[in-house]
Amino acid sequence: MSYFENVNKVKFEGPNSTNPFAFKYYNPEEMINGKRMEDFMRFAVSYWHTLTGEGTDPFGQGTMVRSYNHLSGIDLAKARVEASFEFFEKLDIPYFCFHDFDVAPESDSLSETFKNLDIIVPMIKDYMKTSKTKLLWNTANMFSHPRWLHGAATAPNADVFAYAAAKVKKGLEVGKELGAENYVFWGGREGYETLLNTNMKLELDNLARFFHMAKDYAKEIGFDAQFLIEPKPKEPTKHQYDFDVATGLAFLQQYGLKDTFKFNIEANHATLAGHTFEHELHVARINGMLGSVDANQGDTLLGWDTDEFPTDLYSTTLAMYEIIKNDGLGTGGLNFDAKVRRGSFDPEDLFHAHIAGMDALAIGTKVAQRLLEDNVLEDFVADRYSSFTEGIGLEIVEGRANFHKLEKYALSLGEIKNKSGRQEYLKAILNKYILEAYATVNA
Amino acid sequence: MSYFENVNKVKFEGPNSTNPFAFKYYNPEEMINGKRMEDFMRFAVSYWHTLTGEGTDPFGQGTMVRSYNHLSGIDLAKARVEASFEFFEKLDIPYFCFHDFDVAPESDSLSETFKNLDIIVPMIKDYMKTSKTKLLWNTANMFSHPRWLHGAATAPNADVFAYAAAKVKKGLEVGKELGAENYVFWGGREGYETLLNTNMKLELDNLARFFHMAKDYAKEIGFDAQFLIEPKPKEPTKHQYDFDVATGLAFLQQYGLKDTFKFNIEANHATLAGHTFEHELHVARINGMLGSVDANQGDTLLGWDTDEFPTDLYSTTLAMYEIIKNDGLGTGGLNFDAKVRRGSFDPEDLFHAHIAGMDALAIGTKVAQRLLEDNVLEDFVADRYSSFTEGIGLEIVEGRANFHKLEKYALSLGEIKNKSGRQEYLKAILNKYILEAYATVNA
Amino acid sequence: MSYFENVNKVKFEGPNSTNPFAFKYYNPEEMINGKRMEDFMRFAVSYWHTLTGEGTDPFGQGTMVRSYNHLSGIDLAKARVEASFEFFEKLDIPYFCFHDFDVAPESDSLSETFKNLDIIVPMIKDYMKTSKTKLLWNTANMFSHPRWLHGAATAPNADVFAYAAAKVKKGLEVGKELGAENYVFWGGREGYETLLNTNMKLELDNLARFFHMAKDYAKEIGFDAQFLIEPKPKEPTKHQYDFDVATGLAFLQQYGLKDTFKFNIEANHATLAGHTFEHELHVARINGMLGSVDANQGDTLLGWDTDEFPTDLYSTTLAMYEIIKNDGLGTGGLNFDAKVRRGSFDPEDLFHAHIAGMDALAIGTKVAQRLLEDNVLEDFVADRYSSFTEGIGLEIVEGRANFHKLEKYALSLGEIKNKSGRQEYLKAILNKYILEAYATVNA
Amino acid sequence: MSYFENVNKVKFEGPNSTNPFAFKYYNPEEMINGKRMEDFMRFAVSYWHTLTGEGTDPFGQGTMVRSYNHLSGIDLAKARVEASFEFFEKLDIPYFCFHDFDVAPESDSLSETFKNLDIIVPMIKDYMKTSKTKLLWNTANMFSHPRWLHGAATAPNADVFAYAAAKVKKGLEVGKELGAENYVFWGGREGYETLLNTNMKLELDNLARFFHMAKDYAKEIGFDAQFLIEPKPKEPTKHQYDFDVATGLAFLQQYGLKDTFKFNIEANHATLAGHTFEHELHVARINGMLGSVDANQGDTLLGWDTDEFPTDLYSTTLAMYEIIKNDGLGTGGLNFDAKVRRGSFDPEDLFHAHIAGMDALAIGTKVAQRLLEDNVLEDFVADRYSSFTEGIGLEIVEGRANFHKLEKYALSLGEIKNKSGRQEYLKAILNKYILEAYATVNA
Repeated sequence: MSYFENVNKVKFEGPNSTNPFAFKYYNPEEMINGKRMEDFMRFAVSYWHTLTGEGTDPFGQGTMVRSYNHLSGIDLAKARVEASFEFFEKLDIPYFCFHDFDVAPESDSLSETFKNLDIIVPMIKDYMKTSKTKLLWNTANMFSHPRWLHGAATAPNADVFAYAAAKVKKGLEVGKELGAENYVFWGGREGYETLLNTNMKLELDNLARFFHMAKDYAKEIGFDAQFLIEPKPKEPTKHQYDFDVATGLAFLQQYGLKDTFKFNIEANHATLAGHTFEHELHVARINGMLGSVDANQGDTLLGWDTDEFPTDLYSTTLAMYEIIKNDGLGTGGLNFDAKVRRGSFDPEDLFHAHIAGMDALAIGTKVAQRLLEDNVLEDFVADRYSSFTEGIGLEIVEGRANFHKLEKYALSLGEIKNKSGRQEYLKAILNKYILEAYATVNA
Repeated sequence: MSYFENVNKVKFEGPNSTNPFAFKYYNPEEMINGKRMEDFMRFAVSYWHTLTGEGTDPFGQGTMVRSYNHLSGIDLAKARVEASFEFFEKLDIPYFCFHDFDVAPESDSLSETFKNLDIIVPMIKDYMKTSKTKLLWNTANMFSHPRWLHGAATAPNADVFAYAAAKVKKGLEVGKELGAENYVFWGGREGYETLLNTNMKLELDNLARFFHMAKDYAKEIGFDAQFLIEPKPKEPTKHQYDFDVATGLAFLQQYGLKDTFKFNIEANHATLAGHTFEHELHVARINGMLGSVDANQGDTLLGWDTDEFPTDLYSTTLAMYEIIKNDGLGTGGLNFDAKVRRGSFDPEDLFHAHIAGMDALAIGTKVAQRLLEDNVLEDFVADRYSSFTEGIGLEIVEGRANFHKLEKYALSLGEIKNKSGRQEYLKAILNKYILEAYATVNA
Repeated sequence: MSYFENVNKVKFEGPNSTNPFAFKYYNPEEMINGKRMEDFMRFAVSYWHTLTGEGTDPFGQGTMVRSYNHLSGIDLAKARVEASFEFFEKLDIPYFCFHDFDVAPESDSLSETFKNLDIIVPMIKDYMKTSKTKLLWNTANMFSHPRWLHGAATAPNADVFAYAAAKVKKGLEVGKELGAENYVFWGGREGYETLLNTNMKLELDNLARFFHMAKDYAKEIGFDAQFLIEPKPKEPTKHQYDFDVATGLAFLQQYGLKDTFKFNIEANHATLAGHTFEHELHVARINGMLGSVDANQGDTLLGWDTDEFPTDLYSTTLAMYEIIKNDGLGTGGLNFDAKVRRGSFDPEDLFHAHIAGMDALAIGTKVAQRLLEDNVLEDFVADRYSSFTEGIGLEIVEGRANFHKLEKYALSLGEIKNKSGRQEYLKAILNKYILEAYATVNA
Repeated sequence: MSYFENVNKVKFEGPNSTNPFAFKYYNPEEMINGKRMEDFMRFAVSYWHTLTGEGTDPFGQGTMVRSYNHLSGIDLAKARVEASFEFFEKLDIPYFCFHDFDVAPESDSLSETFKNLDIIVPMIKDYMKTSKTKLLWNTANMFSHPRWLHGAATAPNADVFAYAAAKVKKGLEVGKELGAENYVFWGGREGYETLLNTNMKLELDNLARFFHMAKDYAKEIGFDAQFLIEPKPKEPTKHQYDFDVATGLAFLQQYGLKDTFKFNIEANHATLAGHTFEHELHVARINGMLGSVDANQGDTLLGWDTDEFPTDLYSTTLAMYEIIKNDGLGTGGLNFDAKVRRGSFDPEDLFHAHIAGMDALAIGTKVAQRLLEDNVLEDFVADRYSSFTEGIGLEIVEGRANFHKLEKYALSLGEIKNKSGRQEYLKAILNKYILEAYATVNA
């Protein structure tokens, strides 16, 4: 049985292809930064959006047309696993990601939930044996069930904390079982609705306690996946504790967790926090904390997480620029935490969307690589800050200056000459390089 | 004497040119929609940003390095006129636009202000005799001087209303004298700061009275320029009456002014109102009200009017798509209501910025034209709405249906089949066409 | 059987009451603007939030603890009707509002859906016989079922248009049957997701056709309820056609529907559009189009419709100020289109929330009434615009001025004197009046 | 000579006073938290807005009517000092704050600038001898002059860094001379316009170097004022490094500066960052980093820093709640970093505005104090988190739990019971307490 019978295996056909089910720029075999593009970019399917997602929104019911819609419970879960590996293979994608609740139904009873996982996880493991698709990361859903309504590790209820611990314990075991390369913590409801009823200090202390316990348990069972925090400023909660990378950094330093975690950075979460995607990647990178990416895009004229597939070439170029400068994502990857629009309900739309995203990121990668090879921006920046490589600037950087010396120097200066920042020129250069992507594939 | 001695006349050199002072995509001679690109696009320089702008911001003084900075008063005004025509010629641009206050200093006395204009306007007219650059539109600045602090035509002070009338009367005369093809009204302070002290009804009535008087006077003196309203939702006022195109439409209909005005639509004003640029153009177009364009772009992560030069190719493509469908802008044009960043203070940056903008809009034009030639979106849309060309759909459109007939029809239906909206596929198509712009110039 | 056994009938006890289930400021018998407060304010319960709402959000399942949660289908619908009238009575509220789908389950078959309504509507009618609570308005839900995924009256599919017509036809019949005083149109999905696949002109034309048919049918069956349009700028769609009051006004004028409709204005929709609540009320009022109100509040630091119960006394005061100046809402009322937070899941929270909202609006009413009685703002405004009541100002207002006369007058002026707008002083006055609400009840 | 001849010394007259130039709630002698209200709240005038501010905005010239407007240079500076102490005395305010550039004109030459300061600072010191008004903090303006266009301590130009060092050195000396209790760093242009031309890592390293040098110099000269960082997310720069309190915390920890600094928190900066004012205060407080406050308010429907005087009683109450829980602000205070609207240009408006702000904060203080005395919120919160004071919760908090123990516990649980968060009830309580402020003064 096929769940995607109208689509064959997707292959690279080049930019002039008119086949909607072909890659036009993403060529797994092309070399980027010394690696095959497939190995460098490490694309992943998000199980929740692509297999489990139904197309609901706050004002509407599910719309997705899927051949397993008539099933329910464990049967539905099994059908989705079958469908997922058909999808992975047809899309030729090397990774996938999931929350526990995406793959196995959550029961009111914890032991029942674990039993469901114990049915599905071996099934997934079996499929993985004959599939090239590996598990980039898994995580525990601790925001959907009503028990999490006030949070999980930051809940005002110790029972909920304990329940969350049990879920993550199981999640770490599942991750080890399936060879997950990372384990993600997204604090969906770790935050507050109103300060009027909140003890923020206790909640943050508890969150840190929870992370330390998770670290200890992973070590105990020999699960050496990279731990990842995923910042998001708000939605569903009014204010989430992992607001952005900087907020996460403050927390991790404060609680002695900086060496244990890196960040999983999502484009749409960045813009909800008032930052560009590349800003968040940059801040993580220069702190050695860039772990993985949830590749999507938002709509900055809308105030919620639209989780669109990434197609904006400016964003993909500037994101991949950071990632190449980071020498890739290590054990991380580019996970499509993105959903087809509610009105794009055909199974074929899942292919259109992933192809659009993979091509857009491939274009971004190729443009970024050329910008770096040509040192276009790097040389500009080096020249702009060159005054710190000699004279008083070097003294500042090397710690040999103080206010006395600097005042004396400043008093000796005539009018200070600054250099133009050339933003408009640099934006034109960026356009030039993006458009030349066409030629680099043809050549 | 030269004000821009480091730059020669800018020419088209094609996309592979590495000359930063050459057009790479804007080729005035290329044909678009049956016209030379120069004649179709009708680019204009904004005098206020490019000649008068000093680079101030709410926290900082001017930064722009201009060779006339040491002058003041009427001498400064004259130097700017000289510089402007050198700039127009070197940029090879067909139009410019100005507020009265940009070209001539405003005195505390109205008659003195008029005298200043009577010195500068003939000087401009003289320059125009030997220049190809024409006046796209002029307008009156009724927001900078403290007298306008509560508005101009909507001021709570009848003296201010009268003063505004005198300024616009002069503006219409100046426009006629210089052959302006349009006259613009931007209601910078026509709005309110707080409803606590505002009579909105009287202010709107007065605004309509003002527009009728302007219309009458233009007719009286035989000035047949197109009148244009420029929507903006806020800034400097808390709430501006010309919030967006729809708000302008409501006002114009209500006061019998719909046939007198069209809209001058600015990209950054659109996004401040929560709309895309193409949305505003589209709404104006389908109402036959698309008059002219202030071509710039904003930063949707910032909440003020950044007035950046347009370089986003998605925005330029979708904007030019609307403009081509509108069969061009008639007497309107593409005015760069855009300023170089405060840190881009060199005279050369003015060229970088305009070239970046002209190329970006030329690319957008070429992409839009190919999309239209290939009927890519048009065919998709026609098919999507095809049910309204036959059967019950045609009855609806032709006014032959009613609730009785429709209910009977609906009760006879089985499950309704919708078609996917294919947003992700269409976005991939858009990327494909944008990247192919490279090849269309090379070919 | 009682659904709200922990709460007795809510009564007015005055501001010093410590009973959480008592009104502290809302006193139905107090006189406002010549009417009993209950008759002036016309509060209504929203059936969808209060009876049908389950507490879901985009990341979470339902949380509401309701004694009918174990039921489903028509049995659940019946239990909710029972519960609703108990709630209305205990809250002593004079009105309620519903969508068809709130009260009766929607089947895949239209005739089945109608049958469900034909079971529930008579049951509601029966309850109404012995209840003081009347139907403020009803409407049709045309956004939840997947068939509406691309819109209803603006769908690209004629079958969907017909289906929508049938639903509204039934809605009008139900409204007449239950004595609804208004009928509301909220265009939840009447808008677009992307212009790339949209024929906006056809969609707007169809929307107007739909409204004309609805008007004709209501006339045919003698249903003389006030028709109301409810503006909202976005969510769930990217861009909704009824963006705000001004956009609605433009549309209604254009399609000859201005006399048929008024506006149902929602606070949170106003802020999503970038306006204050009072702005939207004001614009509707001065155009004679203020019909009814969805009383809630949003969180301007969040970008979605939070639909909170109104407790902000600034907002309630300035809203009631507009409503008193409008001499009330006619057949309209104050409908609590507001939901308890997902974490406020107890049945008691429904009382806390409604009491909070009713008291906040009662306080606002009392403050606004005193401001009007004392002519605090009215006198300030009259003085501020007094120059338009004599001399040149009067000539302007009476249409006796033109640009010649005004220029001559302006040239004769010395320096123009403006008056301070006194915003800070007026805000202090507002605080003073709000705080004095305490004393006005005690007295 | 008097600069404010129409206003006498402002005194407390109680809530029923109709004198616009009297305090209605701010009573310096009333006791708050064991101190006189004046000593607890430590109000300060911002010299830049109130003495130096001219009412300009990005679209308009100055509007403020001040009797020293005809002066310039050092004469203007002297007149403003005279006016300032008259204002302080008439307002009876205990503190003021300034940037160097507010009090003395900045020359193109650094030594000239220092000379100007050396004229004005002794004059201020003289006035302070006979005034009760003290210096809360001073700072250096390093954002207005064009030399700072790319930043100061984070400039790409070492000369600029040196110049900044000289300015801050002088600032520390001036602070010591005038007995400033704090020294503030607001990084107006310490950020970036575009990542395309930015070396963020070097800029941040340099910023830290700068702070260490400042710390060393203050120690050297025995200036023991509290150092304060003032977070702001954007404006004028696209992205400022001190985005919010959390970002500042990450930076200070990373560079070993956490013990040297506290935060100066501004309400409008909080909302620009997407936070409430009380959130930022809370985060600083629970980290022991709440140093001082810039008391103002923004307009969340506008995207720029409006710097309005604080009149929103919700904001003032929740802010003072944090401050009382912090046992006051130590050496910090409540500085009115707020400006009268451009249309409020009379000298009298400065009094209206400060009185409005001082009363609003006094009301907030009184409400917050009563909430704390009655333990309304504290008891609710204590109860909500009570599960962490015993059993498994206590084990978690005391570090005696791990994932094994918690899983075992969770498996033994039946359905988890959460408690309602009661947000609507708590908001009603807040309204009740705010309105009762009226009675607490009368009593």
